[in-house]
Amino acid sequence: MTSAISTEAEHTVSETRVYRPGNRSASELRPTVLNPGFTAMPEGSVLIECGNTRVLCNATIEQGVPGWLRNSGRGWVTAEYGMLPRATLTRTARESERGKVTGRTHEIQRLIGRSLRSVVDMKALGERTVILDCDVLQADGGTRTAAITGASLALAIALQKLVAAGTLKSSPLTQMVAATSVGIVDGNVLLDLCYEEDSRADVDMNVVMLASGGLVETQATAEKAPYTRAQLTQMLDLAESGIRSLLELQQTALAKAV
Amino acid sequence: MTSAISTEAEHTVSETRVYRPGNRSASELRPTVLNPGFTAMPEGSVLIECGNTRVLCNATIEQGVPGWLRNSGRGWVTAEYGMLPRATLTRTARESERGKVTGRTHEIQRLIGRSLRSVVDMKALGERTVILDCDVLQADGGTRTAAITGASLALAIALQKLVAAGTLKSSPLTQMVAATSVGIVDGNVLLDLCYEEDSRADVDMNVVMLASGGLVETQATAEKAPYTRAQLTQMLDLAESGIRSLLELQQTALAKAV
Amino acid sequence: MTSAISTEAEHTVSETRVYRPGNRSASELRPTVLNPGFTAMPEGSVLIECGNTRVLCNATIEQGVPGWLRNSGRGWVTAEYGMLPRATLTRTARESERGKVTGRTHEIQRLIGRSLRSVVDMKALGERTVILDCDVLQADGGTRTAAITGASLALAIALQKLVAAGTLKSSPLTQMVAATSVGIVDGNVLLDLCYEEDSRADVDMNVVMLASGGLVETQATAEKAPYTRAQLTQMLDLAESGIRSLLELQQTALAKAV
Amino acid sequence: MTSAISTEAEHTVSETRVYRPGNRSASELRPTVLNPGFTAMPEGSVLIECGNTRVLCNATIEQGVPGWLRNSGRGWVTAEYGMLPRATLTRTARESERGKVTGRTHEIQRLIGRSLRSVVDMKALGERTVILDCDVLQADGGTRTAAITGASLALAIALQKLVAAGTLKSSPLTQMVAATSVGIVDGNVLLDLCYEEDSRADVDMNVVMLASGGLVETQATAEKAPYTRAQLTQMLDLAESGIRSLLELQQTALAKAV
Amino acid sequence: MTSAISTEAEHTVSETRVYRPGNRSASELRPTVLNPGFTAMPEGSVLIECGNTRVLCNATIEQGVPGWLRNSGRGWVTAEYGMLPRATLTRTARESERGKVTGRTHEIQRLIGRSLRSVVDMKALGERTVILDCDVLQADGGTRTAAITGASLALAIALQKLVAAGTLKSSPLTQMVAATSVGIVDGNVLLDLCYEEDSRADVDMNVVMLASGGLVETQATAEKAPYTRAQLTQMLDLAESGIRSLLELQQTALAKAV
Amino acid sequence: MTSAISTEAEHTVSETRVYRPGNRSASELRPTVLNPGFTAMPEGSVLIECGNTRVLCNATIEQGVPGWLRNSGRGWVTAEYGMLPRATLTRTARESERGKVTGRTHEIQRLIGRSLRSVVDMKALGERTVILDCDVLQADGGTRTAAITGASLALAIALQKLVAAGTLKSSPLTQMVAATSVGIVDGNVLLDLCYEEDSRADVDMNVVMLASGGLVETQATAEKAPYTRAQLTQMLDLAESGIRSLLELQQTALAKAV
Repeated sequence: MTSAISTEAEHTVSETRVYRPGNRSASELRPTVLNPGFTAMPEGSVLIECGNTRVLCNATIEQGVPGWLRNSGRGWVTAEYGMLPRATLTRTARESERGKVTGRTHEIQRLIGRSLRSVVDMKALGERTVILDCDVLQADGGTRTAAITGASLALAIALQKLVAAGTLKSSPLTQMVAATSVGIVDGNVLLDLCYEEDSRADVDMNVVMLASGGLVETQATAEKAPYTRAQLTQMLDLAESGIRSLLELQQTALAKAV
Repeated sequence: MTSAISTEAEHTVSETRVYRPGNRSASELRPTVLNPGFTAMPEGSVLIECGNTRVLCNATIEQGVPGWLRNSGRGWVTAEYGMLPRATLTRTARESERGKVTGRTHEIQRLIGRSLRSVVDMKALGERTVILDCDVLQADGGTRTAAITGASLALAIALQKLVAAGTLKSSPLTQMVAATSVGIVDGNVLLDLCYEEDSRADVDMNVVMLASGGLVETQATAEKAPYTRAQLTQMLDLAESGIRSLLELQQTALAKAV
Repeated sequence: MTSAISTEAEHTVSETRVYRPGNRSASELRPTVLNPGFTAMPEGSVLIECGNTRVLCNATIEQGVPGWLRNSGRGWVTAEYGMLPRATLTRTARESERGKVTGRTHEIQRLIGRSLRSVVDMKALGERTVILDCDVLQADGGTRTAAITGASLALAIALQKLVAAGTLKSSPLTQMVAATSVGIVDGNVLLDLCYEEDSRADVDMNVVMLASGGLVETQATAEKAPYTRAQLTQMLDLAESGIRSLLELQQTALAKAV
Repeated sequence: MTSAISTEAEHTVSETRVYRPGNRSASELRPTVLNPGFTAMPEGSVLIECGNTRVLCNATIEQGVPGWLRNSGRGWVTAEYGMLPRATLTRTARESERGKVTGRTHEIQRLIGRSLRSVVDMKALGERTVILDCDVLQADGGTRTAAITGASLALAIALQKLVAAGTLKSSPLTQMVAATSVGIVDGNVLLDLCYEEDSRADVDMNVVMLASGGLVETQATAEKAPYTRAQLTQMLDLAESGIRSLLELQQTALAKAV
Repeated sequence: MTSAISTEAEHTVSETRVYRPGNRSASELRPTVLNPGFTAMPEGSVLIECGNTRVLCNATIEQGVPGWLRNSGRGWVTAEYGMLPRATLTRTARESERGKVTGRTHEIQRLIGRSLRSVVDMKALGERTVILDCDVLQADGGTRTAAITGASLALAIALQKLVAAGTLKSSPLTQMVAATSVGIVDGNVLLDLCYEEDSRADVDMNVVMLASGGLVETQATAEKAPYTRAQLTQMLDLAESGIRSLLELQQTALAKAV
Repeated sequence: MTSAISTEAEHTVSETRVYRPGNRSASELRPTVLNPGFTAMPEGSVLIECGNTRVLCNATIEQGVPGWLRNSGRGWVTAEYGMLPRATLTRTARESERGKVTGRTHEIQRLIGRSLRSVVDMKALGERTVILDCDVLQADGGTRTAAITGASLALAIALQKLVAAGTLKSSPLTQMVAATSVGIVDGNVLLDLCYEEDSRADVDMNVVMLASGGLVETQATAEKAPYTRAQLTQMLDLAESGIRSLLELQQTALAKAV
């Protein structure tokens, strides 16, 4: 296990003071740690901790692609998401025991897959498939965005290994991608909601952004009350500032890991 | 089957000229028709046609609520989404035959359900469940947003029947909700993508908005290239204009239907 | 949507007077309409209406055959049957949600498939598969026999298209096939039962007959009381007279549709 | 295991001579044996042998009825059908391993269930459920009709036990029911087809008849060529004669078994 | 059905007297009968009866092997285990109806497969798969060990047929394998538990042994109270003595069957 | 996360020298670490590391028991076992995606459940269910025995919390239980096989033993060559010595954890 890269507190947007668990400001990320090499088997393995949320992101590179890409010369990137039964405060039944994957899981793994595909040059990858397994060991809100941020690093490490092994001339990764959540709680726009905040939020938004600043996914859902265009703008501003911090953290971790 | 309510062309935003199937302008909705009473069994039944997309939206009102709401005095609204095998150009296998519902279907029915729940006063509904079945008879892009627009009308009709029957004093519907898609195709921001446009789009966005102008869901996904904040703003503007037209159409149809 | 072909009333067998919903005589079919071209995507699409029963029958022609026919030079015809959740008076759970197809559905789609295979020259079809999707939009009894009658027309249209496209020299369809139900209700032998009659019937019978008069399927089931050979003869007579009317209707519709 | 009741040869209809496996005449049943008490656990257990076809029919009587009959004072009779993997010449995959019951199995168990329900007075049975498990140990054609004939005897024995135990005053069984197959092979109408005949048959028919002579199920399917009304009449005549022999066999076996 | 081979009573270990159903001594097997040729379809078919336990063991030989052995020149042996619903005193739901195989079934079929693979020279078998279907017709304890003993004989018969047919020069079977259960009930170490004993047992042990005396599987499970090393030794002694009797029985049966 | 308890090397049996990965002697356990409190949500949480094998064992205590124990005043202990897809050298498909739990998983979770039930006084537990979730983060052989050893500690911690909270007067845990594997590799009897050794082993044995020295489970399977009684004795000796070390480790860890 190489040394973990973390950030304790990021204040990048001026703000009015609200009370938050952990005494965070409205525009502050939770303490975030990236642990590359958490397990030894995968081509890339990262344990990401965002506050009490902990997601193990493992990258596997396999020869071959799904049927519809065969003989296209192009690669594929996909993701699977799971949660250990006791990642949550009360136990959640295992999806393998229920015999099917829930809609929520499907939705999340489609989001992670799309996000990661946006930073890979599939032609350069060639007919290989990268699978990102994102398994939540402990859940305290923001597991899907943590998974994207962690999986991006695991992907980068795995692709670097292909380069180090001489299999590829250069990494097919075009840039890093990271994600965070924002939301409106008691009228305040907050960055990086923990579970307690998320469960009370009027609006919950996930933003996925590239190192270049380009947006790849913005999803804002009114859970209790609708939101205005002005609030949407505020949420986007806050999310961008948080993601920039996460992108820096990834760079530091990646530099040490490879 | 009561008389169908339609709109031929809505131009509300100034624009540069692009070529689109059906010779539409960039800011024009496809011809949209709402057919209330398309089938006789449901409490509310609406066939919505958006260009070649046709979705049958049926509202069922059942006594009782899911377990976690029992004895809460509150109601529930949920949605299911399906597509006939030959709604599409090439045949799609039946989900019942495959033995499971795909991730895409789960994602869509969760979106429809959330959207419709945002306009119902659950306390006023009481311990009843409204199920909105949205079945695509013909698919040419925008089926999920058409489903929301059609289901909103089916829901309104069904709830009016409870009032007409004297079961409820007034409708628990707080306002109408409608949805449309926008996207970026060949660098142009376009309203209400058909399948051919959608499959080439760099960015695909769904917007769900209330009659009050409040937003309940905005989801913008970069399918091929990332988008900027400026483009996001353009897409939101266009979507709002389109949804306002759809909300008017709903009002006219509702007035005639009940 | 091309013009629909319908028959209002067919009286071909002398009879004693019984009261029936819609004021039909014992030997009268319900008003039956065939709408070719109801949807645009399928090779052949027919909406059949038998009274309040409405079934959308879509024919898809695909290259290739199931494994056991590969390299045999012979084609295959199969059917799938579904019912929208709110085709019925009270909502029926979706088979895709329940994760399996019911025995009733299996039984019906096997019956439709066998009936349609009896009118196709598989050698002339070549290694192609025709799938008939029969989806019930509204159910008021007799959905399986309506599906056979409608699917026969959809199949004829689809195969004509292969001829029109020059893919086949002549249609592999050898003749038309149609079906209806008969039953014994309150001691009376009745043609084409609606749901209300069917649910009270002592005996329920389905008959599938070719234009040549040959029988391909006769199934008579005592639901409440057994039947005699004499009653079986009466039911067969009535069914044959009804099917002859349906075969005429198909011919008229086919002539206009192609 | 009590002594088995069998019939070697039944000639009841005059006929032209055809060659059949086992040198049977066209109107002859295969040697049929009823072994009551084949296993010890069930309330009623019968191994029926029709030529090489062997079906174990076990009757279970349980307290209670399905939900829709609760508090109706009425009972229920249902059937399940299975086939051991190596009942057939080449091995058939286990339905439990495939994770679902095939359409053919569903169709057969629905047929057996309906047939047996026709001879039970559900009011007299009271809120009890009888399950008839029909498991094919060896398959050589006619397994579903053998299952009905065997299950009828197992049911009679099981209900007699309720009477013997003083639970019921008299048996709710109103009469016996039996079944056989007939078919058209090479133009000849044949009774009780074995597998080799069945696989070549143009028409395959199953007939289920009561001891009273009333018909409860007649299903004639054209597998290769359609059939005429005259042929249908011939098949029915032959089936009735065969079933009368089976009903006698059941009576003899029942008299010894109880 | 060839003549059955049985053993009435085997006393090979000195013992204190305990009361057992059937008046057996602690070291006595239940009356055991091997019926080769019980059904006609399989390459090898054996009905084994151990007291009231009856298991039908059918061997199927198919061309080809699972994917991971393709082109290895080696064969494969596997087993499936099932139980008829009414093999037990109260009815057990069918695994095909429940849509999945239980953990118990999986565990048993893995045990049978491993046991049988230990006596086959896979190189000599070549790329063929032998499937042993073990179906319990009547269950009174010890079904898995009876299945191994019966399947070993069915396997031997099936492989001999390959030799008789000239397909193989000599049988790939290296020796016979047999199995029995032992347990501790009320402090007594008992051989070959019946269901009544098994359900009261403190410890339940299965032993699988080769004709050579080599052990292939020993599984001792404390169901109620732990066991000592001394008790384990006693159980092993008793099991070995029982299995030697079963191996003799197999030899006698095999000599007559081939 | 409290401080982890580990043992570097345990030599308790005299032995001939063999080469093993990590330069272990034949009778040496792998370095074993118990991390209590690895995650925060469960009532008891332990990460056990046995060499490179890492299993997260989480104990959940829920009110209520399965149906067959209701109103018995007795509790229940059960286990579920899972493996992250990339715990292994090459990726293993997720059981939730395959829609069913494999036989291997079923077998393992039944073993863990039985082992843990042997140390709980169900009467003292009362109508509560303890679920032990054992999830393999990294797999290098011996995952099921590591799971038992880790789950025993997690169970002890969870039950202590019930005492600390005043819910129970004293812990229903009667003693600790631990497990290890032994095997025969290249003729040598080895303790605690790693994956590389396990895959080459002729015999693989799992032993589960109580602190009292009582055995609760011994399973010895010949994977390649059969074993003698003498070898079985050797394996049992070695396993007992290893388990005694593990039981000491558990005591030290438990003393610190509670």
